Amino acid sequence: MPDLPESPPTGDLESEEFRRAGHAVIDWIADYIAHPERLRVQPDAEPGALLDKLPGEAPVHPSPYGEILADFERTIVPHVMHWNHPGFMGYFSAGGSSPGVLAETLIAALNNIGLMWSSSPALTELEERTLQWLGKLLGLPLSWFGMIHGTASTASLHAMIAAREFAASAARKAGSALDLNRLVIYTSEHAHSSVEKTTAALGLGWEACRKIEVDERYAMKPDALREAIASDLRNGFAPIAIVATVGTTGCTAVDPVPAIADIAAEHALWLHIDAAYAGASAMLPEMRHHFEGCERADSFVVNPHKWMFVPMDLTAFYTARPEYLRDALSLVPEYLRSREYSRTVNYMEYAIPLGRRFRALKLWYVLRSLGAERIADTLREHIRLARLLAGWVDASPGFERMAPTDFSLVCLRFRPAGASEEETDAANERLLHAINETGEFFLSHTKLRGRYTIRVAIGNLRTTEEHVRRLWELLQGLAADAESAGRR
Amino acid sequence: MPDLPESPPTGDLESEEFRRAGHAVIDWIADYIAHPERLRVQPDAEPGALLDKLPGEAPVHPSPYGEILADFERTIVPHVMHWNHPGFMGYFSAGGSSPGVLAETLIAALNNIGLMWSSSPALTELEERTLQWLGKLLGLPLSWFGMIHGTASTASLHAMIAAREFAASAARKAGSALDLNRLVIYTSEHAHSSVEKTTAALGLGWEACRKIEVDERYAMKPDALREAIASDLRNGFAPIAIVATVGTTGCTAVDPVPAIADIAAEHALWLHIDAAYAGASAMLPEMRHHFEGCERADSFVVNPHKWMFVPMDLTAFYTARPEYLRDALSLVPEYLRSREYSRTVNYMEYAIPLGRRFRALKLWYVLRSLGAERIADTLREHIRLARLLAGWVDASPGFERMAPTDFSLVCLRFRPAGASEEETDAANERLLHAINETGEFFLSHTKLRGRYTIRVAIGNLRTTEEHVRRLWELLQGLAADAESAGRR
Repeated sequence: MPDLPESPPTGDLESEEFRRAGHAVIDWIADYIAHPERLRVQPDAEPGALLDKLPGEAPVHPSPYGEILADFERTIVPHVMHWNHPGFMGYFSAGGSSPGVLAETLIAALNNIGLMWSSSPALTELEERTLQWLGKLLGLPLSWFGMIHGTASTASLHAMIAAREFAASAARKAGSALDLNRLVIYTSEHAHSSVEKTTAALGLGWEACRKIEVDERYAMKPDALREAIASDLRNGFAPIAIVATVGTTGCTAVDPVPAIADIAAEHALWLHIDAAYAGASAMLPEMRHHFEGCERADSFVVNPHKWMFVPMDLTAFYTARPEYLRDALSLVPEYLRSREYSRTVNYMEYAIPLGRRFRALKLWYVLRSLGAERIADTLREHIRLARLLAGWVDASPGFERMAPTDFSLVCLRFRPAGASEEETDAANERLLHAINETGEFFLSHTKLRGRYTIRVAIGNLRTTEEHVRRLWELLQGLAADAESAGRR
Repeated sequence: MPDLPESPPTGDLESEEFRRAGHAVIDWIADYIAHPERLRVQPDAEPGALLDKLPGEAPVHPSPYGEILADFERTIVPHVMHWNHPGFMGYFSAGGSSPGVLAETLIAALNNIGLMWSSSPALTELEERTLQWLGKLLGLPLSWFGMIHGTASTASLHAMIAAREFAASAARKAGSALDLNRLVIYTSEHAHSSVEKTTAALGLGWEACRKIEVDERYAMKPDALREAIASDLRNGFAPIAIVATVGTTGCTAVDPVPAIADIAAEHALWLHIDAAYAGASAMLPEMRHHFEGCERADSFVVNPHKWMFVPMDLTAFYTARPEYLRDALSLVPEYLRSREYSRTVNYMEYAIPLGRRFRALKLWYVLRSLGAERIADTLREHIRLARLLAGWVDASPGFERMAPTDFSLVCLRFRPAGASEEETDAANERLLHAINETGEFFLSHTKLRGRYTIRVAIGNLRTTEEHVRRLWELLQGLAADAESAGRR
């Protein structure tokens, strides 16, 4: 620390200075969203390049606002991946939106920390109401308890904590105790990595996450699940939960939830549904059949920050049995006891974090600004675009589709004539990098049945048919290049 | 869901519309921060009042921006607790700031999701650099690995996951295995509730968190800690960690870290330091002595969203042994493998959540805008104001100070002449509610040695000596009222 001057601090920014600085930030964003294509999706940046540009010591003296914004643009933006670009089709698109930006501005200005109800009544009650709205839009049971988490991984961890409490409670009633060393949970080979991470976080080890075989559509095989549970029971393990997925990360497969719910009921296991990406599509009547059986689950997670145009981070978590979460995690220290306590919802009792941001405000803002109808229309359009691309892939002898296109993700690969599987993998890896290096699009990959597969994830509010047509042109052109490069 | 029209979606908001709407939001905030005193700190709101005002169904059609902002002001704001008000002195003040607001706006506009480095190089490298800056400002060892979490509770959970891995690794080397049913951790009776919650979340149960007795300054007694560990070892428990606090939540007590570090070393236990609130004051050379011994810890947590004017949520977590976190939690699914992977920091490997917001941008913005010097000056001023109030309390026969005022929190109570302890508790509870009901200030309480204690937490960028003088006036005046009410 340098020597400090004697002068007293001057308080927060003068509000007129903030007004000017704020207008400049808004103008920067307005220009940014007006022409997203002027920037490369993927930055042309080497590891460490930004680190090298930033000084080694924290700034000692204040910088004027204009200088900070200019430095942001000049120093930081060139190293940013533009998730907001209509050509961003990697992972799952995280669809932000302008109303979401305005809401985050207000959230930071109010800077509320939700602890119990009385620390911010508005934060608590808006969370209750907006999660009821969302649950109704998705056709979830009206009786479910909803709350917001930062990520689906965090929500799934809470689901497994509730599942463990549910099992512990049953064991106590039977006069025994749960042996933590023997707990196991079940999910499919194609489930999100967060399920395995949950068992790791809880100390059960990676192996405690039993990964059940999938069928030709990459959906969990109920018979294999049933056998795995029986085998574990024979061997003295303690099954506590099943995690089924509607819309897996790799290829948007849908596990057979009704059959899985039967098995969960039979063994009194907690059933958690991971619909982080695909859950939003339950808004559409024509997609609702993918969610059959979800009403029998104990908990359910969907990310409005994935496919509902709410900026990161907003995960909606629902449970039919909030009392187990509360039994597991509720602890009310003296300094948080308040007069109204017993008459209100106090989210801190249902979660590991004590404090929470006023995230509900962005769900409210986005729903108010776009309206449920337009969100639904946009999802429907994304699904149409994905099927359009899938149709072109199917009609093209040089390409092959690697998985069903039930939502807005297309899994495809290029098939160079006469190439071996290994050569095909290498050609697709070259193709993916060639696409990403154009800066026009960003795609990611997975492996399906061991083969390198290109994923095209459509989910941005600004992505249109024109973008998808242009991508298909590029894929075909660059595939031809990759093929001739492979021959050389 | 209502029937949906046939018209195709129209894409994101037109940028000129966003510009106008954004300026209006900034103007609202500028007016809000110009006159924070025009609003009550604590809303005059009954449980359920906001719920009743909000419709039961999600909005179907878009609303114009002006209408949404007007509804926000009219419907939501009256139910908001104003954490930004200079009279907010409850819990710990969460000091937001205008540069933090601008940063959150840009974070939402870029809407980056950090997974591994390549999903946003800027996000990763700015997090690396700003946490190095912060670590240097606080005098933490330069070799420590830093990362951002949303809350200190989440960071402490990660510390305990690393601690468990550390112990499991030692057990494996000794040819044995950790029995999850026997794990215990140690903290003081005055530690934050999140420590107990961590053992609950990990399935170890509340009792696995051993709460060690404190001395007359509310600091953990090292001898009691030593005895508790010895007793647990005799009884076949497996101690894995000690959590020491610098600046407890109740009364900012400082545990004797050097003595605790000796005990941790002796038993090869993980030592985690919770400096969530007080950690920021390590910037001040004259406060550095409170942090003696922290350099020997295995992990350390401080919340820039508490006392460094960064809006919620930004918790800085440091560890000397990141490899244990990585061993416990690293799992890289195929779809996240990238070419640069092995040459970069990939934060997802060290945390339960896969995705992370671009939170580093707000730490960068606040440090650039305020500068380290002014932040330090403001902290120094808050400490001066707390000591000023402490002095008035000490000089006033009708009041008593309940704990040392080492940082910016004053623990006090009113002593009505001739009142019993029970009457004194009741009078202080009345006094607290009377203060809060004025709407000028918001205070919270705790219990110290079983007695009701009023907490005055100074930490807002806008709080001045004038506010503290006015509060003291009010406390004296309302105490006299409470005393006469008690006599009636």
